[in-house]
Amino acid sequence: MSVTYWCEHAWLPEGVAHSVLIEVDGERIAEITQGDPGAAERLTGLTVPGLANAHSHAFHRALRGATQTGRGDFWTWREQMYEVAARLDPDGYLELARAVYAEMALAGITCVGEFHYLHHGPGGQPYDDPNTMGHALVRAARDAGLRIALLDTCYLTGGFGAALSGTQLRFGDGDSERWAVRAERLADAYRGQTDVQIGAAVHSVRAVPPEHIPAVAEFSHRHAVPLHAHVSEQRAENVACVEMYAATPVQVLHEHGALGPRSTAVHATHLNGVDIELLSQSGTHICMCPTTERDLADGIGPARTLHDRGAPLTLGSDSHAVIDLFEEARALELNERLASQRRGHWRAAELLAAATGAGHASLGFPDAGLLVPGAWADLVSIRLDSARTAGTSGAEAAVFAATAADVHSVISGGRRLVTQGRHELGDAGAMLNEAIGRIR
Amino acid sequence: MSVTYWCEHAWLPEGVAHSVLIEVDGERIAEITQGDPGAAERLTGLTVPGLANAHSHAFHRALRGATQTGRGDFWTWREQMYEVAARLDPDGYLELARAVYAEMALAGITCVGEFHYLHHGPGGQPYDDPNTMGHALVRAARDAGLRIALLDTCYLTGGFGAALSGTQLRFGDGDSERWAVRAERLADAYRGQTDVQIGAAVHSVRAVPPEHIPAVAEFSHRHAVPLHAHVSEQRAENVACVEMYAATPVQVLHEHGALGPRSTAVHATHLNGVDIELLSQSGTHICMCPTTERDLADGIGPARTLHDRGAPLTLGSDSHAVIDLFEEARALELNERLASQRRGHWRAAELLAAATGAGHASLGFPDAGLLVPGAWADLVSIRLDSARTAGTSGAEAAVFAATAADVHSVISGGRRLVTQGRHELGDAGAMLNEAIGRIR
Repeated sequence: MSVTYWCEHAWLPEGVAHSVLIEVDGERIAEITQGDPGAAERLTGLTVPGLANAHSHAFHRALRGATQTGRGDFWTWREQMYEVAARLDPDGYLELARAVYAEMALAGITCVGEFHYLHHGPGGQPYDDPNTMGHALVRAARDAGLRIALLDTCYLTGGFGAALSGTQLRFGDGDSERWAVRAERLADAYRGQTDVQIGAAVHSVRAVPPEHIPAVAEFSHRHAVPLHAHVSEQRAENVACVEMYAATPVQVLHEHGALGPRSTAVHATHLNGVDIELLSQSGTHICMCPTTERDLADGIGPARTLHDRGAPLTLGSDSHAVIDLFEEARALELNERLASQRRGHWRAAELLAAATGAGHASLGFPDAGLLVPGAWADLVSIRLDSARTAGTSGAEAAVFAATAADVHSVISGGRRLVTQGRHELGDAGAMLNEAIGRIR
Repeated sequence: MSVTYWCEHAWLPEGVAHSVLIEVDGERIAEITQGDPGAAERLTGLTVPGLANAHSHAFHRALRGATQTGRGDFWTWREQMYEVAARLDPDGYLELARAVYAEMALAGITCVGEFHYLHHGPGGQPYDDPNTMGHALVRAARDAGLRIALLDTCYLTGGFGAALSGTQLRFGDGDSERWAVRAERLADAYRGQTDVQIGAAVHSVRAVPPEHIPAVAEFSHRHAVPLHAHVSEQRAENVACVEMYAATPVQVLHEHGALGPRSTAVHATHLNGVDIELLSQSGTHICMCPTTERDLADGIGPARTLHDRGAPLTLGSDSHAVIDLFEEARALELNERLASQRRGHWRAAELLAAATGAGHASLGFPDAGLLVPGAWADLVSIRLDSARTAGTSGAEAAVFAATAADVHSVISGGRRLVTQGRHELGDAGAMLNEAIGRIR
């Protein structure tokens, strides 16, 4: 079935064009031309490709606004996060993730990279199907209309040389071989299904001893799927890693085959010169999550340097303190301004590319996030007549003025998800309130 | 005329309470009790006092999204800002400021501190009434339903020891005596009108030679009105000031009588230990404008230290890269997290107080920004059921989850301004597009 959309303005690979006709055939873009709207469905404002949220922990959404009292650091925040993780069961997680993904859809996100480690029941007892939680996340994404890269995460230790304990027991498979058996089974379940990628993740060098990294990397290479890892988010991780292995986290990952164009290093905040070379020369994606990195007091990573040297930039909302990739995109530039006291580190189009095409590619969907024939038909339309965006235009409108609240229409893989700022599933706020209430 | 509002949740001085009845008599709060809604008008979500935008240059709104191409710094940005200033006439400024203030109202702002220096016609030719531009700003605020502190700004030089040139000629009165004559005339025009304060401002030590500062300070003291000044926003200002006067900008202001509880130092980004003592010990307000300070690559000022030592914090949207005081409030905390790699510098209630009561006080309205009997009846209601705010509560909901888009109802001085996110004047986005289009 073919549908034609007329975009008042559209961000095409060559720049913003006016009066753009996009013919969609099924879930793909068939043709792009310019002309009068005629009988086409009108998309007012600026239409951009679907946004990719390259790093998500869906359940962290339940913590929004709830961890802001008192002093503390990343590690005290982590304790609160474990308390939420302890309360989730498959039904509750399905309900919560569906609502969170609906919030993402409202923000123009058409693909999520879910960094998934909450695999097992309380005490680490596997569910009857040990991928029950993973299936719940895939279902949640499909219900909400997003494609998903389920990054099945290997999580074996509670810190360098420390056994898992408490809630962490739910994350662990014992060793990387057993992780791989479970992950293979999950991959089998979705083989040939184009809206789902079963990728792999090394949680971090804190949680995966070096000898277990190759099996995870091997899964990624064998299936040609993404491989993600948290890297050097906090200085304490670097200090402990160097003490343990006489190497930084990046170096440990490199030595065990976990860097490369299929890989994504998430955060990459505290790097030395060698780390920067290893990441860039290997073409590893760098997923920055600026609103989380602010929230968790991580610091400001060397995004521009990494990008200049060859590491593509992607963006994630991570802990979901905020779900707004426009906010993430501008935070990259604005954080570098605060750090350097200079403006103009990134062009708006570079940041929008990070939020769209590069993000999708890092999640195993290289054929999405671009308005070109053959790509996934993801069309995200932003108001240019709201109080926030009035008077702005071009990629700058999206990156420097818009918020998630300015997205009025979302089409994901040809399916209309959001109309006039409302998700087809219903009231996302009510869904979130209900799901979060259930686990509080 | 008395109207009673029922607030589902309200942020009172003692904390958030549920089922709060606020009786409004004319433009003031008459009584606050708790109880069932009965026939009261219902305000769902969280109701907070009116927000005060303590630092605004209304016309800068026309630059949003338009200065983000290419490299550059504060000084190249300033050139672009002058280009907009050059195109404004009284009608155009009235139209633009009305639309900008409507955007502020939509964001829950009920009072604006307008730092006003665009006094004269092209080439510095005074209008027939030399306060024509000031009157336009007051009228714009009244049309949009905000109270205004018009901070009439003395602006005499184009830099240390440099004459005004180009667009700057529109800012200058020649000397502080002539500035004072004009400002007195403006004050006369609004004497006894409770919704307008005619305050004073020293643009900066760059623009006002020390010998002209006392006359501006004297105006503030004689009328008991606010006195604002830009202070140490950029390192270059400090360097040149020390070179010229062997004193920092704060020290120059102090030596010429411009600090004190009626005063506000705007930005206060680059301070030394003596500066911090002088500002704090004098009880000078510190107006931080974090979204502008990010945008202009200013840096992160020592807000927490100043506050701890006695300088009350206020917030402003300044250049209006963003108009969202919730975003400003959380940026204070989040910037300090990035700088220190620790969480928990500010309690949410402290930041909300900066955005409300302290801001109003710094603008000469000490009887606003608090939900107490006798205060101005400014009631700002925030949705707690949007995708952004769902699952949050208390002051944390406002500071760490809400955006301007979550404000659904605004009552300012007893007058209903915003209902279901719409300003009574009409479509603020359309007003902005029209006003900005006119001067581009």
